[in-house]
Parts: sequence; C-alpha cells; structure tokens
Amino acid sequence: MKSGDFTLPGEAGYEGLTLAMAHKWGADCIRDSDGTQLSEEILHSGIAIYSTLCMVRSVNQWARQNMDKLQRNFLSTQPVLAQGETLRIHPLDGFFREQFAICPADDPKEFWQVWDRTAETLHEAWSYDPQTETVTIENAHPFHLYTVSFLAVRIWEEISMYNHITNDWGEKEHLMAVEPRYPETQQALLAFLEKWLKEHPATTVVRFTSLFYNFVWLWGSDPRKRSLLSDWGSYDFTVNPLSLRAFQKEYGYAMTAEDFVNKGKYRITHCVPTHRQRDWMEFTGRFVREFGRQCVDLVHQYGKRAYVFYDDSWIGLEPWNGHFQEFGFDGLIKCVFNAFEARLCAGVKAVETHELRLHPYLFPTGLTGEPTFAPGGHPEKDVKRYWACVRRAMLRVKIDRIGLGGYLHLVEPFPAFQEEMTRIADEFRTLKALHQNGSPWMTGVTVGVLQAWGSIRTWNCAGHMHEHPELPLNHLYEAMAGQPFEVRVLSLEEVAANGVPQEINVLINAGSEGDAWSGGDLWKDPRLLENINRFVAKGGGLLGVKEPSAVRGEMRALALADVLGVEREIGQSICSDRYQPMPPKPHFILEGLTDPPAFANATRGVYALCADTEVLSADCGEPLVAVHAFGKGRAVYLAGFTYSCQNARLLYRTLLWLARKEKLDYLPRSVACECAYFPNDKLLVCINNTAEPVDTVIDTPFGEKQVRVEGEGIAFVPSVG
Amino acid sequence: MKSGDFTLPGEAGYEGLTLAMAHKWGADCIRDSDGTQLSEEILHSGIAIYSTLCMVRSVNQWARQNMDKLQRNFLSTQPVLAQGETLRIHPLDGFFREQFAICPADDPKEFWQVWDRTAETLHEAWSYDPQTETVTIENAHPFHLYTVSFLAVRIWEEISMYNHITNDWGEKEHLMAVEPRYPETQQALLAFLEKWLKEHPATTVVRFTSLFYNFVWLWGSDPRKRSLLSDWGSYDFTVNPLSLRAFQKEYGYAMTAEDFVNKGKYRITHCVPTHRQRDWMEFTGRFVREFGRQCVDLVHQYGKRAYVFYDDSWIGLEPWNGHFQEFGFDGLIKCVFNAFEARLCAGVKAVETHELRLHPYLFPTGLTGEPTFAPGGHPEKDVKRYWACVRRAMLRVKIDRIGLGGYLHLVEPFPAFQEEMTRIADEFRTLKALHQNGSPWMTGVTVGVLQAWGSIRTWNCAGHMHEHPELPLNHLYEAMAGQPFEVRVLSLEEVAANGVPQEINVLINAGSEGDAWSGGDLWKDPRLLENINRFVAKGGGLLGVKEPSAVRGEMRALALADVLGVEREIGQSICSDRYQPMPPKPHFILEGLTDPPAFANATRGVYALCADTEVLSADCGEPLVAVHAFGKGRAVYLAGFTYSCQNARLLYRTLLWLARKEKLDYLPRSVACECAYFPNDKLLVCINNTAEPVDTVIDTPFGEKQVRVEGEGIAFVPSVG
Repeated sequence: MKSGDFTLPGEAGYEGLTLAMAHKWGADCIRDSDGTQLSEEILHSGIAIYSTLCMVRSVNQWARQNMDKLQRNFLSTQPVLAQGETLRIHPLDGFFREQFAICPADDPKEFWQVWDRTAETLHEAWSYDPQTETVTIENAHPFHLYTVSFLAVRIWEEISMYNHITNDWGEKEHLMAVEPRYPETQQALLAFLEKWLKEHPATTVVRFTSLFYNFVWLWGSDPRKRSLLSDWGSYDFTVNPLSLRAFQKEYGYAMTAEDFVNKGKYRITHCVPTHRQRDWMEFTGRFVREFGRQCVDLVHQYGKRAYVFYDDSWIGLEPWNGHFQEFGFDGLIKCVFNAFEARLCAGVKAVETHELRLHPYLFPTGLTGEPTFAPGGHPEKDVKRYWACVRRAMLRVKIDRIGLGGYLHLVEPFPAFQEEMTRIADEFRTLKALHQNGSPWMTGVTVGVLQAWGSIRTWNCAGHMHEHPELPLNHLYEAMAGQPFEVRVLSLEEVAANGVPQEINVLINAGSEGDAWSGGDLWKDPRLLENINRFVAKGGGLLGVKEPSAVRGEMRALALADVLGVEREIGQSICSDRYQPMPPKPHFILEGLTDPPAFANATRGVYALCADTEVLSADCGEPLVAVHAFGKGRAVYLAGFTYSCQNARLLYRTLLWLARKEKLDYLPRSVACECAYFPNDKLLVCINNTAEPVDTVIDTPFGEKQVRVEGEGIAFVPSVG
Repeated sequence: MKSGDFTLPGEAGYEGLTLAMAHKWGADCIRDSDGTQLSEEILHSGIAIYSTLCMVRSVNQWARQNMDKLQRNFLSTQPVLAQGETLRIHPLDGFFREQFAICPADDPKEFWQVWDRTAETLHEAWSYDPQTETVTIENAHPFHLYTVSFLAVRIWEEISMYNHITNDWGEKEHLMAVEPRYPETQQALLAFLEKWLKEHPATTVVRFTSLFYNFVWLWGSDPRKRSLLSDWGSYDFTVNPLSLRAFQKEYGYAMTAEDFVNKGKYRITHCVPTHRQRDWMEFTGRFVREFGRQCVDLVHQYGKRAYVFYDDSWIGLEPWNGHFQEFGFDGLIKCVFNAFEARLCAGVKAVETHELRLHPYLFPTGLTGEPTFAPGGHPEKDVKRYWACVRRAMLRVKIDRIGLGGYLHLVEPFPAFQEEMTRIADEFRTLKALHQNGSPWMTGVTVGVLQAWGSIRTWNCAGHMHEHPELPLNHLYEAMAGQPFEVRVLSLEEVAANGVPQEINVLINAGSEGDAWSGGDLWKDPRLLENINRFVAKGGGLLGVKEPSAVRGEMRALALADVLGVEREIGQSICSDRYQPMPPKPHFILEGLTDPPAFANATRGVYALCADTEVLSADCGEPLVAVHAFGKGRAVYLAGFTYSCQNARLLYRTLLWLARKEKLDYLPRSVACECAYFPNDKLLVCINNTAEPVDTVIDTPFGEKQVRVEGEGIAFVPSVG
C-alpha cells in the first residue's frame, strides 16, 4: 500500500471525513474548491495545502470603482435592412444586458465600425447618441444590410454569471473581470495577491484556477438562444483601448473591430487563423506571460509553489505554444474526461508536476444532469469508466499526480466509490512507479498531425470531446493517446516552408472543409503540396480523414487527392462515372477486426479517384477505408473517425502499415485490450478498456503471453524478456 | 373516335401491322427509326412520311478520305508526378483509343498546353514526338504534378460507338462525325442532303435526329470506368483549329485548351458558366444556326417540312436560347420521360408543331434492362405510368402531336398495349381539342426560377430526371409542369443588372453549393442581393431549396440567409447555439398533407438563423420546411425537393402562400389528383396521378364538385360555371 501524489478536496465541517479519505486514498495534499473553505483543523493536519485563486474576479470592490478598467470585447449586431437612406441600430439589441454594456469612456469613433454587409464596405456616415444608445446611419444604400461593430464592456464575468443563473443565486454579487492591461489593475491584483499570500501561511501550493482571460462566451437576450458564441481558444476578451493602441504602435498596423467580429462569425478556433489574429495572439500572450510571471514570482517569494489549472482560461497560457516555460509555473493541472487530455498534460516539459483532475467531479449531478453522487447514482461505476478512459494514456506517459474536485461530503454515502477510488489511486501509483523506472516500449513510429494552428493546439482541437464529437481529430488523438506512437503537431505553414521534418514517418490530416484541422486555403500553397508529394513518394505515409486538404476552385476538391487516391464530390464531377468497385481483398489494416469499420462522423460524397485505389470498406458505395500507393509511399483515407476499441485498433494497424512496420509486438489480439511493455521491469501491463472480462494473447518477441483481464481491469505479466 | 396527330414508327416486313396500328391509333404519319427502313407499300399508303436524318455521320466515305476534317475536342491527361526534371507523358494514355486519336494535321504547339498543376502555372519547356505520341517535359519541378492538354480527333462518333459496343455489332462500320466548320464538309453535307431529298420524294417531313454536335461523351481505356465524362449541354465537341482561330479573330482573345478542360474537370452544364464559355457558345451557336438554316432551306425547297429532335444534340439548338426561330424549323420533337420535358417542348414559340416522343421506346428492354416488350414485360402498364407522368403537363399546355419510336413489330404480341395506346391517343386528342378551344384557368402567379444560365436552360437543368435525381430543380420543374403557374427562368446576372421583372410574384433558387442552379459566386454581387432584398421586402415571395444562394467567404454561407431566415453550417458557426425549437403551429403550407414532408435529396446542416423563423417540419432537429417574414414579403426554405404527389401539393401551397394568394380554386382535395378548368368549355378535367382510384372533391367558385377518378385515369366534370 503506497501513498502520496493524490490531491483531495477538503471541506470545512467534514474534517473527520476529509482526514479519513486523505488516509484511505493516500492523499498528500488537500485543496479547497469553489465555494468550500478549509478549516483550521485541516490546514494544520500536516498535509500540504492547495489553495485556488481566480485573480481577475477577485477584486470586485475595486472593479466597481473602476468600471472603465473592466474587460472589453468587440461585438457585432445582427444585420439590419435599410429600407430608406436613414437607419437606426441599437448596438446592444439582442445581447444579454446583464453581461454587456457600453463603456462611456470609450470613443465610438475610435473603435466602432459600421458595415454595409451587402456590399461588404465600411460605411462612414454615422453617429452615436450615448443617451439612447443608438447608432444613426445616414446615406444608407436602400435594401442593403448594415451591422454595427462596437466595443462592449462586460459587467458580469462569465463563470460567475453561469453559476449564478444556473444555481439561481438571486441577490449574490455579480463578479466582474478586470482588465489587467491597465497598470492600476495590475497594482490592485498584485496587492490582492500579496495580501492573500500573507494571510494564507498554511498554503503550500497556489493553484491559479484561471489566469486573466476566459474563453469567449457571448450571451444573447433571447432565452431560446442563450449562448451566442462559446469557444475555448478565442482571444475576443483580450481587447481594450489600451491594448489596441499599444498593438498598433508595436506592429505598425491597427487591429480593427472586423479582425475580431469577422462579419459576425468571430474568429473561432475551429477556423483557420489569419496572420493578424496570430499577431494579436502573440502580442497578448507576451503580456499574459509577463504579468503571469510577476504573479508566480510573488508566490515563490512567499515560499509557495505555483500551479495552474488549464481549463477555463487558455489565453496566453497554451502549454504547447513554446513559451509556457516563461511563466515559471511549478505544476500544470488538467481536468480530464479523455485520454488525450492526459497526454496534453503529461507532454508539457516546462513544469515539474503534471496533475490530472479526475472525473466525476464531486457534484450531485454530472454534465448532462445524470445522477452521480445523487440518489440513484453509481459513482463507483462512473469513476471506473472515466478511469479506464484516461488510464490508456498513463500506460504510455508519466503523470505525477491525480486528484479530485468538488464537495467531499458527497462521497460519504457511497462506500463503493471510496473503495474504487482507493484501488484507482494505487493503480495510478503503480503505473507512475513503472514510468519512473524506465520508459515503455514504443513502435518507433512518429506521427505528424498536420493542421493550421501547429503545435499550440497539440493533443486537442479546442475543448472536450463531447462538445464537438463531429471532429475526427479529437477522436484520433484519443485513439493515439493510448498507443505507442510519438505524436507531433505541425502547422501547414511550417511544412510548406520547411518540408516534413526528418523524424516523421506518417502524416495525418483530419478535418472538414475549411476548418483549422483540415486547413482550408492553406492547401493552395504549392510548396505544401510539393513537400507532401515528396515525403510520400519517397516512402512516407499519409493518413487523410474525412475531408483532408479540402479546397475549392482548384484541380482537386481534396488537394491531396492524387496521393490519397480519393476525391470528393462537390458538384464538379457529377458527370463522370465512378470506378466499378473491385471485390475487396484481405488487408493488413482490417485484420483481426470483428466488426466492419463505422465512423459516426463519416462524410459523404468521396469516391475512388484512381484505378489502383483499393477500397477496403465502403458504405452505400462510398469508401470508408481506402488505400493507395503513391511513389514509394502509402496513403490511407478514412471517411471519418470516432474513437472506439475497434477503430483504435484500425488506426493502430493503419499507422503501422503506413510506416511499413507491419509488426504487432506487444499488441493483445483482443481489440478490447491494450498493452505496454516496460523493458527495465521486464513487465507487460495489459488493460481492458471494456466492461467485460477478456482472455487474450499478447504477441511479444519473447513468445506469446496468455492473459486474463477483468472488465476495465489491469493485468501484469512479469518476467517478459 | 378521332384520329390524327400521331406519329407511328413503321417497319418494313411488317406492312400489315404498320397499317393496322396506324389505323387503330389514328396515325397520320409514319416514320422510320434507326435501323428500320420503310417499304414501298408503306411509303405509298397515303399516310404522311417522316424520315430521320443524322447529317454529320451520314458521309462516312467522305470522312475516311478527309480525316483532317473530323470533329475534335480538347482532352487533359491525368496528372503525372515529376520525380526528376524530365517527365514523359503519353497524352492518349487512359483514353479509349477507338474513340480518340491525335490528328497529324494539328500543330501541338498551336493548341496544346502543359500545366504544372501543383503550382497551377503553364509550363513552356516541352516537346512532342509524333512517332511515339509522347510529350517530353524539361525543367520540371520535382514532385509537382503535370498534365498535358491536347487536341484530340474523334475517330468514332459516340452514338455509333455506344450502339455498336452495346449491341456487339462486331465488324460493322465505325461512323465518324465530320466537322461542319470546314467549307469542304459543308459542301459534302449539303450535297448529301440534296441527293437524299431527291431520292426520297415520299417523305413529307425530314426529322433531323440531331444537328451537328453531340453532347460530350469521353470514354476511357479502363473498362471499370468507361464513361469519363458525359454531359448534354457541353460544347467540348465544337472545338477545332478553324473555329479556334476564327473565334480569336472575332472576339479579340483566344480560347485555350484550359477554357475547355478546366483543370481536368471540363465545363459541365451543372457548374456556373464563365463569360468566355458563354462567348464560345454564342460564337458556335451562330454557326450552328447559319448552317442549320441552309439545311432547313434546302428541305423547304424540296417541298418538305423540317422537324428537329431535341435530345442527343443540344449544341446551338437549345430551343429556349432566344435564337431558335432563326433555324426556320417547322416542328420540335422532344422525347419525354417526365412532364417538365413536355413543358420544355410546348413552350417553344418559334415552331408550329410540338411533338412528344413517348415512352416506352419500342425496344425489347427498358433503360435499366427491365423487360418492356420482352417476355415478362407489361408494356401496357409502363405506357400508362409514363403517360400519367407526362399528361400532367398537357393539362396546362397544348401539345400538337404525340408519337412512338422503335421497332413496331415488338407490340404485336401485346394486345393490351395496343388497346392502352389507343386510349392514350384519344385522351391526348381530347386534351388538345380543349386547349384549342381556349386556355385553362391559371392561378395568376408567375414564378421566376433564378439560376446561373438563365432562359437557355428553361424547364430543365441538363438531362433527364433519372440521370441526376439529386438536383432539386428538375423535381421542382416536374411538380410545376402540372400546375397552373406561369414559369420563367431568369439568370442571376440579369436580375443583378436589371432587378426582378415586374411580373414575377415568387422567386425560386434551388441547388447545391457552387452549382449552376444555386449560382455559386454570382451571389457575391451586391446588386443581386439588393434587388432580391427589395423584391421580398416590398412584398414578393422567395423559395430557397437545398443550398440556395450558397457561397463561401461571405457574411453568410447562404447569401440570402437573412431573407430566408435560415443559415447553413459550413464549420463557421459550430460554436454558436441554435434556437431552441418552438412547438410547430398549423400552417397553410402543410394543410391537407397526409404524410410529413420528406425529400430524398435533402441537405444537412441548415439551421434557423432568426428568432422569428418558423420551422414547420424538421428532421433530426434540422429544418425541412421553414418560413420567414422579411419586410412585407415572405420566404420559404425547403431542405430539398423530390417530386411526389405529396411534395407537388406542398409546393403548390408554398407558391400560393408566397404569392399571398392562399385560395384553393380548382384544386382536388386529394393530393393524388390534379385538375384543370377550361372556362370556354365550362369543363373541369381531373387526373389521378396514382395507381389507385380516388374519390375527391374539387373546390370551385361554382361550388364543390365531387369526382371519382380511376387509377391513372381522367375524369371530366361538365357544366362548371
């Protein structure tokens, strides 16, 4: 029985339970959660203390006195039809008035824009009346549509707003997010932090629950459509007069409202970023790191460690953007539903401690309202399932700590959960110890994921899997998170400029037409096509998923069609016959799969372009899995990809085949199971990702190993090698 | 029992049958068919004689002696990867060598092009060796893809080739299509025609089975993909050195191979035409009409009439292109599977005689190999079904003649067919007589179909319904063909330039993103949007179907989204919530429909954009039918449209609602039936479009009329009014 590396959410009033669970689960650290306080008894129990801090909504009194120093963002009205030459628009119409207001200190003529959206031209003849909050447009073009882009100030921080409204908090104070660009705000925040540090001597770790800017979340006035926009990665909330002016000074051009509102569509992370957007991100990221560093330094001055929770607040924090080390954080905490989120956390080199906040969260109900710790709930089953999801990643990489969040008292009536958690904590420590003794065996295959963003979006598109199950790339990450491949993320622009890096064996491009994951117009760069043609023709592998390299107006609707051997119907080849299908032959990729491939997010309308394209699996005559030789290399097309045991195995075999390493070492024959081999321990670790027990055989260079693994269980085969 | 207005295919060797059927069906005209000859007995029976002529493949001996005056076309090779700086491409690789050759008389350097398709640049350093038929490309960019566009000569006319290969004709002569642009060819053709006219004194009508240029039909060398391209409306086969040079002289710019091969995608009719393409069509059409007129004049000189069959050969002949009268044809014959094809024929004002060639064709088997006049066939059922399809149009407009084609002897063992045909011929004559006595009642609603081509493609997209069932516009034409609406076809460019014509009550735009029927980038013209905004805001109606006004890179993915009240998801709004649906309320459009709307070609991913969009019917949360007010006007969105009795009624009600004429005069309550009212005869004519008998009520300003109509039958209610 080991202990340590476990973070427990403590709860005042439940001191006995807190200490009992700490002992049971081997917790070496107790944290508070939103809405909980740790008692003196816990604070002085000798166990290390985490304290959560959300800086920008922590100085609400100061915020109320400095309403011109709140965070801003650009908004665009809905288009309004001009029926004559004069048109009046109320900018705030349609927006949630408790979230947005117009800041009297901001000059509309400096930042606002009026657009003729029918002609897509800027319109100059307009005025704003602050009394009536009305824009009057003169010399309008009748029967054109007009929008007003304006700088709004947010008078309610979104997490506060969401919790308040969801939990019906009534009169409870509306917290506001202050804008840290203002020197006065920085002073106020640093003063708050220093005071706080002084007042919390028992705290050993300050856990920054977020940094300075939330993900964008725009609310509307219509209860039938509350959320107008929500995106984890967007920088919309980083805009304000100060930073707009500073940017222009530094970069020599001005970011305008249109750079953010983008015809009312904004700049969501799922779309291909512009260079101006990237400049703004760089400019803002630098500020976040500089001011973040000041906060971290202050924490360190008080002899405490600084961890950061990477969830609500991504802006400038992105741990894979190449600058994360500048903060000086000691730890990175990631909340995980899925294995790829564990890989996102584990792979960050710039911190010492990588911690996972497991699910279920200790709340009465789950994400979709299902009972978890409420009557009728089975949290012991939920945690087992979540753990089995995430554990796959921990077979491959070392995680340093795990922990829970929420209200600890909820676990009291669920002894089965308490037991299951005990088992999980031990299993985690066992896996960590194995990694500490030496890395597990890898296939030697390095996969390069090609998308528009590059490494800043590594091991994730934008957000959790359940938010956008239509994105094949998150599902691919999920499959690979439990597989022995090296994974690198490459931007299309870097591959266009520099070619495919030497170490890459297989490239993946997986997305839908025009999105950041497929790459949109970036595929119009001939250097990119040339470099990928060269890579594959010389022996590399290419995996295209759903609508890879999709473009319009070019020779092919899939820029890589000639490599992939498939093309997409976008109405331009409906007068051409398709190749009559050949009877499918057995293929390495599909061997051992019990069901035919099926992808819930498969696209329609793709067809075999070349006579030598082999369609291994089809649905209504359209390829689901197709393979094609190109020069000395190989290409595979999948019409979609959703994570499942079957599809993960399909992917595993696909990547081996593409890399010309069709050897199945350390692979359980049952697709339900996965395996890691730790050579220093001569140990095979086999996990069962399904609920049913499995008897299977693992092929190793040291012979076949028979193994039985319980449902969602783990089995160890010693003395291998 | 009436007679006349019926064209019978005669057959030598079956003189008795021919004359018996002529008598039974009331035929006043006997024609030959491909492969049949009329005997002296028939020729001198006193019945008028049609003779079919296909000019350009009628002078094969001359063609063999003038192989440099055969028809040409541009072809593009498949892209080939350059692995080094020299690359060899055999232009004819992949093409059917019995169809295509390279004409030694044509100078490759004058007309051919080599393209770097990776960079999309013309490549200059290449040479051609006629001995080996090889293009050698020097200074190639390694790992770029190259294509060769070349001028091919066709050594086998496509219809001859298809019939030959399909029927396994072995050694039978390959007919070749001569190029009528050459003065020598024209001489040869006119001489042939004159000789023919002299030798056929019994012929009263010369039926030009086609004119000079077939639809494009490119065959490949791979039997797994025989048809590389097939498109009724394309002008690919009109290219040759003479016309290319003449065009340049007249228009001041050269049409190049690329104008035709278009990156290997060619210029199919379903895509938005370019202005250069339109110039070429005008240039070619003028020639077709000039030389066609000479042929017609010659026919007239010999005292015969000249009809033209509009099917295989559209080029320059398009009867709705505004120039059809220049030919001086006396009759237009259209083969019809569907009602819209009857409307296409009937609406052409420039000819005296409008004739339909009915289905089934007198062939042993039908289009898809089903037995028709073969053992097991039920041609009497087939003809009844086809007739019921086409008859709907004849309720609304006058057709002058009907007829059959094929081998008459096949009907001999099918007396039930002989009887059914007798009934149909009489029914036709009854309907024609009603039209002759005065036009039927109309709703007074004029519909404008908006697409890229304009009136040249009236009452048809390109081809028969069964070839492209995915196109909603053909289905809409089919529905409207049997309904009392005026239908006009408008090009997007004319509406952009001149606004919506005064007489239009409802506009329709129905197509898929980027196709000619939706309109593609033509929707980026702000004048177009302004004119439609104005039209609807002032009270007009707009019907958008499938992906109407779909564009990329603009504010909306559907340019008319703000009018229609719906928008399309193309990955740009996946971070926005949708409006929570409202419980649907009863609506005029859906009243009386027995089944919920369903469209086999419905698109996915469209959603309600505006709070006041009413979704009347949805599938998996996505609108199938949505309505929206815009200013004083109304808009309806349908996610697709396929013809059925239900959907035709849905459309009827939609168009009335959009035109604000929600009055159901002369409309049978059963959706199975349709009705025409002939005021001069005070007669209601009610048809049943289904196989089951129907009892229904027709509401008229003169009271309710009860009627029973047999399956696929017709009923007459006299003394109405």
